[in-house]
Amino acid sequence: MKPIPGLFDKPPRPVRKATTPDGRTADAPKVLIVGGVAGGATAAARLRRLNEFAEIIIFERTGYVSYANCGLPYYVGGVITDKRDLTLQSPEGFAARYNVEVRVRSEVVRIDPAAHTVLVRDLESGREYTEDYDKLLLSPGARAVVPNVKGADGERVFTLRTVEDTLRVSERAKAAGAERAVVVGGGFIGLEAAENLARLGIKVTLLQRGKQLLPTLDADMAALIAEALAAGGVDVRYGVHTSEFREDSGVTVVTDCGEFPCDVALIATGVAPESDLALACGLETGIRGAIVTDEFMNTSDPDIFAAGDAVQTEELVTREPVNITLAGPANRQGRIAADNICGRFDVYRGSQGTSIIGLFGLTAASTGLTEKTAAKYGIRYLKTITLSPSHATYYPGAEEMFIKLLFTPDAGKLLGAQIVGKSGVDKRIDVLAVALRAGMDVSDLTALELAYAPPFSSAKDPVNVAGYVAENVLNGLVKQFHAEDLPEICDRNDIIMLDVRTRREYDAGHFSRSTNIPLDELRKNIDYLNKSVPIYVNCRSGTRSYIACRILTAHGFECYNLAGGTAFASHLYPELLKKR
Amino acid sequence: MKPIPGLFDKPPRPVRKATTPDGRTADAPKVLIVGGVAGGATAAARLRRLNEFAEIIIFERTGYVSYANCGLPYYVGGVITDKRDLTLQSPEGFAARYNVEVRVRSEVVRIDPAAHTVLVRDLESGREYTEDYDKLLLSPGARAVVPNVKGADGERVFTLRTVEDTLRVSERAKAAGAERAVVVGGGFIGLEAAENLARLGIKVTLLQRGKQLLPTLDADMAALIAEALAAGGVDVRYGVHTSEFREDSGVTVVTDCGEFPCDVALIATGVAPESDLALACGLETGIRGAIVTDEFMNTSDPDIFAAGDAVQTEELVTREPVNITLAGPANRQGRIAADNICGRFDVYRGSQGTSIIGLFGLTAASTGLTEKTAAKYGIRYLKTITLSPSHATYYPGAEEMFIKLLFTPDAGKLLGAQIVGKSGVDKRIDVLAVALRAGMDVSDLTALELAYAPPFSSAKDPVNVAGYVAENVLNGLVKQFHAEDLPEICDRNDIIMLDVRTRREYDAGHFSRSTNIPLDELRKNIDYLNKSVPIYVNCRSGTRSYIACRILTAHGFECYNLAGGTAFASHLYPELLKKR
Repeated sequence: MKPIPGLFDKPPRPVRKATTPDGRTADAPKVLIVGGVAGGATAAARLRRLNEFAEIIIFERTGYVSYANCGLPYYVGGVITDKRDLTLQSPEGFAARYNVEVRVRSEVVRIDPAAHTVLVRDLESGREYTEDYDKLLLSPGARAVVPNVKGADGERVFTLRTVEDTLRVSERAKAAGAERAVVVGGGFIGLEAAENLARLGIKVTLLQRGKQLLPTLDADMAALIAEALAAGGVDVRYGVHTSEFREDSGVTVVTDCGEFPCDVALIATGVAPESDLALACGLETGIRGAIVTDEFMNTSDPDIFAAGDAVQTEELVTREPVNITLAGPANRQGRIAADNICGRFDVYRGSQGTSIIGLFGLTAASTGLTEKTAAKYGIRYLKTITLSPSHATYYPGAEEMFIKLLFTPDAGKLLGAQIVGKSGVDKRIDVLAVALRAGMDVSDLTALELAYAPPFSSAKDPVNVAGYVAENVLNGLVKQFHAEDLPEICDRNDIIMLDVRTRREYDAGHFSRSTNIPLDELRKNIDYLNKSVPIYVNCRSGTRSYIACRILTAHGFECYNLAGGTAFASHLYPELLKKR
Repeated sequence: MKPIPGLFDKPPRPVRKATTPDGRTADAPKVLIVGGVAGGATAAARLRRLNEFAEIIIFERTGYVSYANCGLPYYVGGVITDKRDLTLQSPEGFAARYNVEVRVRSEVVRIDPAAHTVLVRDLESGREYTEDYDKLLLSPGARAVVPNVKGADGERVFTLRTVEDTLRVSERAKAAGAERAVVVGGGFIGLEAAENLARLGIKVTLLQRGKQLLPTLDADMAALIAEALAAGGVDVRYGVHTSEFREDSGVTVVTDCGEFPCDVALIATGVAPESDLALACGLETGIRGAIVTDEFMNTSDPDIFAAGDAVQTEELVTREPVNITLAGPANRQGRIAADNICGRFDVYRGSQGTSIIGLFGLTAASTGLTEKTAAKYGIRYLKTITLSPSHATYYPGAEEMFIKLLFTPDAGKLLGAQIVGKSGVDKRIDVLAVALRAGMDVSDLTALELAYAPPFSSAKDPVNVAGYVAENVLNGLVKQFHAEDLPEICDRNDIIMLDVRTRREYDAGHFSRSTNIPLDELRKNIDYLNKSVPIYVNCRSGTRSYIACRILTAHGFECYNLAGGTAFASHLYPELLKKR
């Protein structure tokens, strides 16, 4: 919807003033905040710290303020045991510490930007009243999107957005006799819910409409977490369309792939910006209906700001409009809105969508563009896959992680990264998130001086190694092929597939047409290879095969290195790896 | 020593050539490498990957090549149990994989830069011979510095630099009846050795010449690790000068603070560049006698390169000359030297000294400048101390860490960081190491979008929080005072010391002159405070007292916030905190 012409074509209205205890005249704006969780709560606290004399009122539709949205699934699973831990601040606490009034179970139902008022409904009494403002901050968040199918609004069908939702799911899942759960949707919330329901000993089936879990990752990286879910006892079904939630003794989830009876049915098919209020009062909205904000978190009305899951900001790399529903950006935006409301210049510098999830001991994380988003924006890229230990292998406890880098084909500028592994993933994604924000290229990654002692990393950190490999690809020291090329390559008979692992590794599973020459024997056997056909080389991780490619290149061969090796390919195409 | 005039005033000599198997003419330099550990081993492998036809020979004085220098203390402690894990590559492995010849127990005793030859001594046979080169890489490392006192070279007095050293210490420490150890020196090696000896059940006394451990940290941060050592059973003595190692039934370490009899005496009083060879042949040397290199890792001779603990490079922030003895930079420099030897342009971009140590469950890390080094270089700075949990506190297992930031007083440009805590320290120092390298300011730290889910971080990561606090200080939102000011401030009677913690916290220990008004009661009690005197506010971490300072400032008070709160101060000055 386009903004109403002329309506917001005006300067901000002057705010009210107060006389301070020491006799000065100071701004004392009356600020209303719609939504008291991440963005709203942060903004309120920052507003107070910046202006002791402002009047600040938070309206929160649920019964809880400043609650730990991201902790909710873990309460279901009993990892967080105390309900009180789910809220970081109470209305009473807000009043005592920040002199901020919190009105819970209060819904703002209309905004009148011209009059600078909102209409509030007290959800307990049903009473409606008007409240005026100097500045309004919208942080209404996002609502769970529920499929438009029969029974989706049933009493035994749940979503997981609020503390109230969580208490209901938790009660149901912990009830005597609860044995089976169906989770519809394989994004963050669906996966965390599945893990936590499984923690309770419940048999979980996860129904995913698409062909991969965790759409924030590319399919090849997401394939790595599917195994962890299976090992954790979660039955994942792909390409499933749900058509009905039928209440019987429990709930039966009816789909095009059969019926799934269960005791707990949870819908986690995504969220959508809560922008109805903004839309209705004529504020500009953008993609997914999100409230359009500028870098000051100002909406199209100079006296209305917005923050959090409901807003449209800019994607860091492409500067394309984006609606990011993550707690970090929400908090940051709330603080920036508060700064600008108080006349302090502060800008939001764009979202990179850094996210992370822990699942059955595995961690998956990403930042910046994926292949999917790069394709969507029409951005060309190169990619590398590296496999590195979380710390020096000679020190006990190292776990391997796959790092996927996307970078521009010319300057090697970092575009995005994805990592999956058991340990140290959070550290490396954060390092790459900073590198991405700093505009670094892959060569800059090689120069990073990261902290090394054997329990923490290797002298060449996994991020350095990823940078080295990407630099080698960029500089043409090695040509690659990728796991997704394997089905076609394994069928070609005009090439050589060369496996440079040890005989023992080869025997445990190899591409059926591949020849085995262990790397350390390559030089003395090189004359047996046919120089007139391309050689597709693999090892377990891509390291030995890279060395092999360098030897082969020096001898005049045309050769390609399998990025990520069989270790990566085996997750995508286990069927291509035959045992001897 | 200045370089010999004119000697190195020449272009590089052309390298020898080879005809490749496919009939091309290619560079085939003969490259000699002095020292086969981090820098030398990395260089050899990279050289081979870049040039299949080069002749590459490594000379290594010890019996082991490519050994895990940083793992040695952990072998003593039994964390690493297999001796084979201490070497990452063997001479045979180097030959098979890289066609690199490794000559162990071979010492290069002289370089003739004009003739392009070295004189090598076979330490087994005593035979000396000449080997010529096109390019020479010096990566001799650093040697343990042993105090010039009687008995320091005794058979039962050890250092810990080589695999041979390690096997000797380990054998001695694990011998029947070994009960007591004395470690002289409290740097990285001394502390890691102390921890690992303690792991064996040995009673360890650590003698430190100065007043603090771990001189790479500032004294206030180092104070945090002293407690962990004490809790781990290590008896640390400061200001101790050792005058003799006396052999008796064991060894008695004689000092100006008494005699310390023990079964194992270990000297870890630092290392010095092994630059005698370079010095003797006229190469330019610099601080600490290190071999001067340019950004290509080229020495003052165009055909001699150098890498690792023996070289002088530039400090990242100040561009001052620096000699850094860390594995990460050594590996990086080796690779860069190899690139340039092969005619590939690659530059070393300066050292920031990022380092980390784990001790009895505590981690201490730093990057960039400390207060000490900033003072040495005459650089003005501001500093902040923040206390943050490693992840969301509502998710089990969060541990607090102290983050100290140094930044410029004008633009807020990051100068350095130090962190001490039990968990998540390695991640945050790496994030800050990247930020420092990217030239970020403290406001950039607030904008970092780091990965958040409850098991991994908070919506506002500790690094974001450190940035926020630093930004508030920089922007004048709050004035600070520091723990080191406390002895003076606690004695002043022209100020108010205000403790805004809860009554219960206050009663458990507070500054003797401080008044307690819990933060949530401050507004209603504010009129009781005397507006004509400055107020020094504290809480546990500095967060509540910051809010208090904002309230007080709005009411016209002059006030100062204790950076890091009592949590930080209690480590430095426990005696200032009285119980009720």
